[in-house]
Amino acid sequence: MTQRRISTSLRIGKVTIGGDALIVVQSMTKTDTRDITATIKQIRELEDCGCEIVRVAVPDKEAAQSLSAIKRKTSLPLIADIHFDYRLALLALQAGSDGLRLNPGNIGDKEQIARVVAAAKEREIPIRIGVNAGSLPANFEPTIPLAERMVDMALEQIKLMENLDFNLIKVSLKAFDVPTTVQAYQLIADKIPYPLHLGITEAGLPGAGTIRSATGIGILLYQGIGDTIRVSLTAHPCDEVNAAYEILKSLGLRQRGPTLISCPTCGRTEVDLIALAEAVNKRLEKIDKPIKVAVMGCVVNGPGEAKDADVGIACGEGKGAIFRKGKVVKTVAEQNLLEALMAEIERIA
Amino acid sequence: MTQRRISTSLRIGKVTIGGDALIVVQSMTKTDTRDITATIKQIRELEDCGCEIVRVAVPDKEAAQSLSAIKRKTSLPLIADIHFDYRLALLALQAGSDGLRLNPGNIGDKEQIARVVAAAKEREIPIRIGVNAGSLPANFEPTIPLAERMVDMALEQIKLMENLDFNLIKVSLKAFDVPTTVQAYQLIADKIPYPLHLGITEAGLPGAGTIRSATGIGILLYQGIGDTIRVSLTAHPCDEVNAAYEILKSLGLRQRGPTLISCPTCGRTEVDLIALAEAVNKRLEKIDKPIKVAVMGCVVNGPGEAKDADVGIACGEGKGAIFRKGKVVKTVAEQNLLEALMAEIERIA
Repeated sequence: MTQRRISTSLRIGKVTIGGDALIVVQSMTKTDTRDITATIKQIRELEDCGCEIVRVAVPDKEAAQSLSAIKRKTSLPLIADIHFDYRLALLALQAGSDGLRLNPGNIGDKEQIARVVAAAKEREIPIRIGVNAGSLPANFEPTIPLAERMVDMALEQIKLMENLDFNLIKVSLKAFDVPTTVQAYQLIADKIPYPLHLGITEAGLPGAGTIRSATGIGILLYQGIGDTIRVSLTAHPCDEVNAAYEILKSLGLRQRGPTLISCPTCGRTEVDLIALAEAVNKRLEKIDKPIKVAVMGCVVNGPGEAKDADVGIACGEGKGAIFRKGKVVKTVAEQNLLEALMAEIERIA
Repeated sequence: MTQRRISTSLRIGKVTIGGDALIVVQSMTKTDTRDITATIKQIRELEDCGCEIVRVAVPDKEAAQSLSAIKRKTSLPLIADIHFDYRLALLALQAGSDGLRLNPGNIGDKEQIARVVAAAKEREIPIRIGVNAGSLPANFEPTIPLAERMVDMALEQIKLMENLDFNLIKVSLKAFDVPTTVQAYQLIADKIPYPLHLGITEAGLPGAGTIRSATGIGILLYQGIGDTIRVSLTAHPCDEVNAAYEILKSLGLRQRGPTLISCPTCGRTEVDLIALAEAVNKRLEKIDKPIKVAVMGCVVNGPGEAKDADVGIACGEGKGAIFRKGKVVKTVAEQNLLEALMAEIERIA
């Protein structure tokens, strides 16, 4: 893995992004922001599932004004997502938001941006310049490749903010297309010192959307690029958070709860391994400790192939072996495998 | 994206792997290979869901002998997966398998390998040297890093085969750990000319397993490495095939059926977008054409953000716009959105 790009750091409420801070997991509420009760409920769900920063859409004045009530009843740092109307950004700042996201594709007016920047600077509130491939104005550098257009749009806004002596900047450059997204982040990574927020936009439903996001975000993180990530899925925001952690866990960048190693099963397997792995996975939801648990289909390969696991089972005909760090500690009948494994896990956790 | 590594090519039955061939999607049956009826049924399911090569476990003589009956009733190229006993490889070749996978971690004897290679050479059947991190013998180079040990094990076997004047070789170097897997493939990519089979081993259940696989396989494909992929999931093998295609689609390396672009929804959305996207996705299962379909939560952002899509909907309060290539073609009431979108899609497909 490429060593992580060194970025400046900034704080969104209590959370540090950039520098040598852990890569932060964000999501966004999907409730009507004006429905304060529903939004508070969803933010609390997000906090419970491990989200570290939450963004809320601010489509109108009432939504902006709701932020202060929402902030009073929740504890995650709150970012206001602003499109089209810079006055909503000013209201969101007044309401106490911990960060702003502006889309320069639809708030282009320099005077308006300057007013938002002045208000953010006064409160030391960071602003994300959130460029989306799809919302670049058609007349903005129409002849050059999309990734370069996205970067140029971001650089133009950064320049504007820097000229206003503002540097609490975070940048994102999202597209649905993975190679375009990767190229845009690669291009900007060497040009600016600011932390980068990664994401694949409009990635879709969980099945295809998590795969598209893992591919794009994974490629960038492996190159050392990225300080915070948001997986965009057409699903409950906790699905986004879970997917984000799985990406980070798969690259060893964050730990979180148990990791299940399980073999795909094959013609050698003599038990219903899929059902067993699902049952183990369900039971692991209650365990917080970052242990590695293996569920393997055959006794011969099992303990060896999963010797990395803290604890595991390898199933044979009518019975199975419980192993720890690749060494068999016990053999039990098939019908007792799940309970015996869970007993070992609870001993460790 | 890095230009694809140039490998030699070989044929598994009717399918070409390597060279400038498309990246091939493989999976493995999870039935008892000796249960010929069940195995034939699953291979046909795999063929229907787009699998291009199927591997079957050959744990004993009866399984090896089943291959000829299985081959007679199915049309996917068949690879026999051999562990421990080289004689099963000889039987699988006699039974007509189109490829062999040997695990050098558990068939180490050079004389035995030589006998298998001679039989494969006579029939022009390729052999995959399938190294798994977990099954390297403990006494094999115990002091050097795991990825290097995996590569050395593969190189040792390759040398042995080359010395027997055999070069129908394919190589895999799988681990559960993504950075280890990526490093192993990177190390071997410049050292040998043969095609590479990519995978993350024992990746787990579909949720975490597809993410881990997409991260690892995606990183390698982006670097131009990989000629065929197998996603290992503790699930029905068609789930593996679907995940493999989603990885390839997300990098623009294969086309297959429609692609759904859908926004994650936010506080701006005024319809039940998640349910709508799921309904559209369900209906798209019957469409073969590789069209891009967008389901967007707001009219203001929607058509622009998804102007890449061939056709899409952007929802507002009580109504929505149907657009094609970013241009609104029609506005319809919310309850008619799904049917109106599907009518447009069927017009294109």
